[in-house]
Amino acid sequence: MSAPQTSFVAVPYDSHFPIQNLPLGVFERQDQPGARLGVAIGDSVLDLAVLERQGVLEPLAAGGKSVFDRASLNALMALGRPAWQQTRGRIQELLAAENPRLRDDAALRREALLPIADVVLRLPVEIGDYTDFYSSREHATNVGAMFRGPDKALMPNWLHLPVAYHGRASSVVVSGTDLHRPLGQTRPDDAAPPVFGPSRAVDFELEMGALVGVGNELGHPIAIEHTAEHVFGMVLVNDWSARDIQKWEYVPLGPFLSKSFGTSISPWVVTLEALEPFRVSGPVQDPPVLDYLRSPGPWALDIQLAVSIQPVGTSEATIVTRTNARHLYWNVCQQMAHHTINGCNLRTGDLLATGTISGPGPRERGSLLELTLGGREPVELAGGQTRRYLQDGDRVTISGWCQGSSYRIGFGQVTGSLLPCRT
Amino acid sequence: MSAPQTSFVAVPYDSHFPIQNLPLGVFERQDQPGARLGVAIGDSVLDLAVLERQGVLEPLAAGGKSVFDRASLNALMALGRPAWQQTRGRIQELLAAENPRLRDDAALRREALLPIADVVLRLPVEIGDYTDFYSSREHATNVGAMFRGPDKALMPNWLHLPVAYHGRASSVVVSGTDLHRPLGQTRPDDAAPPVFGPSRAVDFELEMGALVGVGNELGHPIAIEHTAEHVFGMVLVNDWSARDIQKWEYVPLGPFLSKSFGTSISPWVVTLEALEPFRVSGPVQDPPVLDYLRSPGPWALDIQLAVSIQPVGTSEATIVTRTNARHLYWNVCQQMAHHTINGCNLRTGDLLATGTISGPGPRERGSLLELTLGGREPVELAGGQTRRYLQDGDRVTISGWCQGSSYRIGFGQVTGSLLPCRT
Repeated sequence: MSAPQTSFVAVPYDSHFPIQNLPLGVFERQDQPGARLGVAIGDSVLDLAVLERQGVLEPLAAGGKSVFDRASLNALMALGRPAWQQTRGRIQELLAAENPRLRDDAALRREALLPIADVVLRLPVEIGDYTDFYSSREHATNVGAMFRGPDKALMPNWLHLPVAYHGRASSVVVSGTDLHRPLGQTRPDDAAPPVFGPSRAVDFELEMGALVGVGNELGHPIAIEHTAEHVFGMVLVNDWSARDIQKWEYVPLGPFLSKSFGTSISPWVVTLEALEPFRVSGPVQDPPVLDYLRSPGPWALDIQLAVSIQPVGTSEATIVTRTNARHLYWNVCQQMAHHTINGCNLRTGDLLATGTISGPGPRERGSLLELTLGGREPVELAGGQTRRYLQDGDRVTISGWCQGSSYRIGFGQVTGSLLPCRT
Repeated sequence: MSAPQTSFVAVPYDSHFPIQNLPLGVFERQDQPGARLGVAIGDSVLDLAVLERQGVLEPLAAGGKSVFDRASLNALMALGRPAWQQTRGRIQELLAAENPRLRDDAALRREALLPIADVVLRLPVEIGDYTDFYSSREHATNVGAMFRGPDKALMPNWLHLPVAYHGRASSVVVSGTDLHRPLGQTRPDDAAPPVFGPSRAVDFELEMGALVGVGNELGHPIAIEHTAEHVFGMVLVNDWSARDIQKWEYVPLGPFLSKSFGTSISPWVVTLEALEPFRVSGPVQDPPVLDYLRSPGPWALDIQLAVSIQPVGTSEATIVTRTNARHLYWNVCQQMAHHTINGCNLRTGDLLATGTISGPGPRERGSLLELTLGGREPVELAGGQTRRYLQDGDRVTISGWCQGSSYRIGFGQVTGSLLPCRT
């Protein structure tokens, strides 16, 4: 049976969540206690715990407990691709325009299908470790040129391996969480001692992230041809960054407090199944990569991305950058093969972020640092305001979607405001 | 009532685990299913789950479940210092030489007191995030001098803040876990492309680590005068490192795969209460640190440390370095205040490691990289073997203890062998 093309649930033409998508998330409803798993369809969320309880969705348990009636996707993710595909298939069937089971049962529909606007979306995954890659050649070049000049922009290792560092997992938050401007140590004047105070250079970073479904045992690398089996799905990521803190702290061990005050992810996890039609070839890799990094087919993803800034008290958000995830030099298979080649174990729920995604054009840059050339050329916002870095109250929103012939596979958005520093 | 000085349980004179210590761990016994919490006393382990079940230890629960009958210390740690101190006080009372309750109950003793040699020790804590500091001035200087020359050994930020980076939590393992030599990408010849194969420069790093008991909310820094309340206890850490992988990968974002193939910690967590008599003043900090980093009293710890290497098939381990944790420039209070100053949240079970601990002398260096001056001067082992880096089969053991007037507060050891590469 081929997958259904339309649902009986109304799906606006530009919706991110048609029946071809079916992203998974975790939510709380007002009339029943406890977080549970849901699937987005149009402007609604389908309550998987209710469907299972009503016998409409085949029970799926781990450790004697339903994987749908949980506060995170982890238990479902740990079951592996056959369980994911079975669940997806059954939900597609249930939502299909021609299937009367849910469509014609008004009482069940009322209990199982809720407006997204009426629920509270939670962090979808318990993240074990968060790894942040640095996989955009354009981003690495833009930043490297600013710090070291255009001739030495890319470090010697960059074209040979997907550079990455460990990020902070505890401060990964779900879209809608506002963050306070961080305090920290900076050295604005190289000839004077460092100073303490609120960061004056808070930035966004446009990223995406892959979530690990099934991990690997310590000491057992995942061969690149098997990596895709381990990927559950993807989310949008805003890796908030304090550039002045970063500049002072980062030698020689990398960014630390400049990033760990918060990283936001979108609430809906788009599965690899939904993304399959949007796999494309990535940039040509020259010099050729070592065998363990040779991609098993086209694994760049054609995902359109946009970032907007909306100052507090204004009604208009200005899109400051538009780009596409397909520009990334290193794909998720290469990232995962590299990550585990030394035997490092991945676990269910680990987040592998891409690093800032920048495209080739001047308005395709994934951070204010790049868009403003290090603060030299401010970005103009609707209403006449300008930005070098973010101001208190600014709301940053990243959205992303794959454009199909008659539908979009969307990620929704990841949004958050920068609150004033708590002093 | 003052704390008892002796126990009815035999404690050898050089034992790491007298009644003044009482470190906590997690173990499995042969005759009952399930991991549970235990306390080390002499050569024995006291089963806290059994004591609670028998009504000898006051019940302590979280979420309706005993905190003693668990596979990690986390639930107890999350209860905070009053609960830790109450538990410690009751166990000290029970083990005191003059207390007949357990001493004279042969059946209970048989069930609750087991030879450590008869149990399996598990990873004591579920680690959320693992942070690795770089707090030894001697280590930073030794390594910096090798890479950048003696004049530029310390980076400009080093004396102003406790430099740190995020480590990999998933691959933290308990003492006794052997690790395979990692595969990876290196560039032995700068004029040729990188190559792929087993690391040829596997090293140990002598470290210690603090475990977070109670964390903080995102956005709420822990003021330095309150940091000690958040520290549950400490362990020994071996941060295994592949120097050739590190050298090639680490610019500009820091070490990644060179470390994430495994980090070993000791099974017994020594509490801050047991370490209290060994708090001493640390090195003078000049230039003076910013206010948020001003230490609330003497928080260096007088802990003697030794590392030995034992080649496979030999019977003798050679101590290659001896030093002391008191040399560390940045103490745990400063580390924690810095870590959270930007609002980053710590969680129960987080590991804050010190970074490699080196002392001022040439045989006080905490890694082979430093002991051999980058491989130039091999270390001699008993039996005539020498080492630049570790060879397959080498067992590395770190031990640590505080020397009191009539007893030792010890950490036991963290040990592991380097197995051949899996190819």
